[in-house]
Amino acid sequence: MADCQEDGSPDLTPMELYEMLSAQGEKVRGLKSEKAAKTEIDAAVQLLLKLKIDYKKITGQDYKAGCPPTDIIVSNSNGPAVEDGNDQVDPWNVSTTSARGVDYDKLIVRFGSSKIDQQLIDRIGRLTGQIPHRFLRRGVFFSHRDMHQVLDAYESKKSFFLYTGRGPSSQAMHVGHLIPFIFTKWLQDMFDVPLVIQLTDDEKYLWKDLTQEECHRYAVENAKDIIACGFDVNKTFIFSDLDYLGTSPSFYKNVVKIQKHVTFNQVKGIFGFTDSDCIGKISFPAIQAAPSFSSSFPQIFNNRKDLQCLIPCAIDQDPYFRMTRDVAPRIGYLKPALLHSTFFPALQGAQTKMSASDPNSSIFLTDTPKQIKNKVINKHAFSGGKDTIEEHRNYGGNPDVDVSFMYLTFFLEDDEELEKIRQDYTSGALLTGELKKRLIEILQPLIADHQNRRKQVTDETVMQFMTPRKLDFHF
Amino acid sequence: MADCQEDGSPDLTPMELYEMLSAQGEKVRGLKSEKAAKTEIDAAVQLLLKLKIDYKKITGQDYKAGCPPTDIIVSNSNGPAVEDGNDQVDPWNVSTTSARGVDYDKLIVRFGSSKIDQQLIDRIGRLTGQIPHRFLRRGVFFSHRDMHQVLDAYESKKSFFLYTGRGPSSQAMHVGHLIPFIFTKWLQDMFDVPLVIQLTDDEKYLWKDLTQEECHRYAVENAKDIIACGFDVNKTFIFSDLDYLGTSPSFYKNVVKIQKHVTFNQVKGIFGFTDSDCIGKISFPAIQAAPSFSSSFPQIFNNRKDLQCLIPCAIDQDPYFRMTRDVAPRIGYLKPALLHSTFFPALQGAQTKMSASDPNSSIFLTDTPKQIKNKVINKHAFSGGKDTIEEHRNYGGNPDVDVSFMYLTFFLEDDEELEKIRQDYTSGALLTGELKKRLIEILQPLIADHQNRRKQVTDETVMQFMTPRKLDFHF
Repeated sequence: MADCQEDGSPDLTPMELYEMLSAQGEKVRGLKSEKAAKTEIDAAVQLLLKLKIDYKKITGQDYKAGCPPTDIIVSNSNGPAVEDGNDQVDPWNVSTTSARGVDYDKLIVRFGSSKIDQQLIDRIGRLTGQIPHRFLRRGVFFSHRDMHQVLDAYESKKSFFLYTGRGPSSQAMHVGHLIPFIFTKWLQDMFDVPLVIQLTDDEKYLWKDLTQEECHRYAVENAKDIIACGFDVNKTFIFSDLDYLGTSPSFYKNVVKIQKHVTFNQVKGIFGFTDSDCIGKISFPAIQAAPSFSSSFPQIFNNRKDLQCLIPCAIDQDPYFRMTRDVAPRIGYLKPALLHSTFFPALQGAQTKMSASDPNSSIFLTDTPKQIKNKVINKHAFSGGKDTIEEHRNYGGNPDVDVSFMYLTFFLEDDEELEKIRQDYTSGALLTGELKKRLIEILQPLIADHQNRRKQVTDETVMQFMTPRKLDFHF
Repeated sequence: MADCQEDGSPDLTPMELYEMLSAQGEKVRGLKSEKAAKTEIDAAVQLLLKLKIDYKKITGQDYKAGCPPTDIIVSNSNGPAVEDGNDQVDPWNVSTTSARGVDYDKLIVRFGSSKIDQQLIDRIGRLTGQIPHRFLRRGVFFSHRDMHQVLDAYESKKSFFLYTGRGPSSQAMHVGHLIPFIFTKWLQDMFDVPLVIQLTDDEKYLWKDLTQEECHRYAVENAKDIIACGFDVNKTFIFSDLDYLGTSPSFYKNVVKIQKHVTFNQVKGIFGFTDSDCIGKISFPAIQAAPSFSSSFPQIFNNRKDLQCLIPCAIDQDPYFRMTRDVAPRIGYLKPALLHSTFFPALQGAQTKMSASDPNSSIFLTDTPKQIKNKVINKHAFSGGKDTIEEHRNYGGNPDVDVSFMYLTFFLEDDEELEKIRQDYTSGALLTGELKKRLIEILQPLIADHQNRRKQVTDETVMQFMTPRKLDFHF
């Protein structure tokens, strides 16, 4: 999967450039005040000037310290211009100029999906006999396609299977990468269904300046973090494309079937490919589409061709599955259903991208408790609080743009406590430092527990998960 | 392989339409003279009128019985306009308005390949210690790329492997289809080298209105005819793409490598793809390129990545391998060398295509001795002779446009006899009927022997050839 939350591409958004410029400005000031060597200062100034020129080029505006770019989104994206106001969302780019992040209600209208409303959440609760996951209660998973159909079938004892994935572009995964997996594990537990997880190392090889060996190694390393989320080995198959496609004639046959029924015009419209793109990129969407069909995994699903697929994923992956749903009936297969999540915000604010090459942009799964504390406290985490305690007490903070509060909505289970924090922060009763402290209390054990579980994932365990075999399920 | 000598695509050449029109005209006259039922006559007339409209549309000329279309080549081809004078040659179309066939010397200049000259033929003879194959002596294989390099390496005890293929678009193979295989077997015997044969059933599925099951069945049926050419099972691996690609991670990895290094612009330029083509077609060239690299077959070549490949094929396949040779150094592989053959003429003349849907366009491998005799004698075989015996005796015939004579250059082993026939036919001493009689004497046992050998090809033999395994060779 070409998720948006990955390492830095050379195509920077205006906001990213703005961030780099701010940092470089600080560096120059620091060097000057430290009376550093002239050559060192000169080099830093040179870079600052270069960044200013780049900034002007892509925003049309002059850089001003303290004034983030506004209104104009210019992107060298591979993706088509699926823009609405200031949001751009496609598999390779997610950007917005709003500190609240992307406007998801508009996205539902634009993508033609359906909102996950209270009725659907209640129905899931009724059918599973459990409180719906906090990601549902809080709108992290906010949009769907055909979820009612999946539940109708489930009610009449017809099962389904889950499919999700990850593009292994680096060894470093951050907490945001866990969102779809945490939710998918919950779905697996609740509905007792099998799951396939695609690691698109072929895609990362095609898109990035990486070797196949690197991409494959990242796939295996990422698999360990995924396994550490607690998936049931008897119900879960994880595969690397570079490995699996060459071991499954059925998968290849489905890829060719899909490729016969999608034209270049179509992928150009959906993904914004151009004539200068390599033919690997152009044909790749079929590879991400194929796992949506149970016949791609005959050894796993006992040759059943009629199992409905449900895909939990971030909304930026929807273009792949719009294409898949368009093709499905024409090749005699069921359309996959989808559950879409919002994006996980970067520490610097909801309008910037997290980047694996910038360690301060997110909490990584390898961070120590101290690193977590530093990142959250040391102003890396964009705050919606006021500049002084006095002001904050008087006017209150803004949780809607506060990254620490956003992170709590993802990870704090207790609804009442979360609501109290919201109220207290808004009123000014809760200070930014106190809010951050609570987040640190949540994140430190979350990451430590993950690290402990990951340590227990042996190479044999990985091999077990990654071996094609009949999965254990009942239907 | 998308060879030109295959079943009818809906895109007819002017000459093909002309032939259909002539036949339909005869049919209408026959029905009328037989006083057939009015509905039957009406239906035949309807089709005749439709064909006339189609003919006008693609040639811009009115159909006139007895006057074949001239000068204008209009093609709905998928291929780019690689046209020179009146010749068009690409993987999906071969057409010319000259009764002598395509001008191959011009093609060498256009494609930038090298002529197989007497020096090269002599060198092959010297190295193998055998008389060079009649296909070399007579210019059937007329062009090459890097053949001297292959021979240099061979002289210094470095071996190579052979790669050829077929696009299994129908069960019916004709004698023309055997040309590359007859020659490849000779090369295998002479140089004692391993061979891989690709059956592009995936390609036929992508290009034709056929199911994957049909294409795969044709692949297996065609494999029997190929095996009947006498290949050594210990040195030969035959594979269907639909099967093999899903059983070889190494093959898939090479496909993705190639796909990363070829843009849509490039395949558009080479193959003439358009934005309306499906993404399967656009990415297919990488699948035909991959067998050129020994690392695509680790189990066969003992993981060797440095084995040079030599590809004997018809010249219309060259675009695939121009692309392959362009990519090879960029992914660290050796460029494949090539040996190009001319096209095998249709019975109706060298400017028309053979078509598996027209049983009279060629000698099929399933024809009975009687069918062979009828096809050659019954004016299906275009003659360079004169209209009456008297004229022929006086003015002589023209072997250069005579299909029977052309067929003898392919199949009559004796150089002296062939030269005598040429002289006698040119002088008028040999009549058309006598020439045809000699051809029938050659073809009948050739086909009968093939049929006998094919009968002995059991399903187990096919499975042996099609099982990936280490091949037996010495280097």
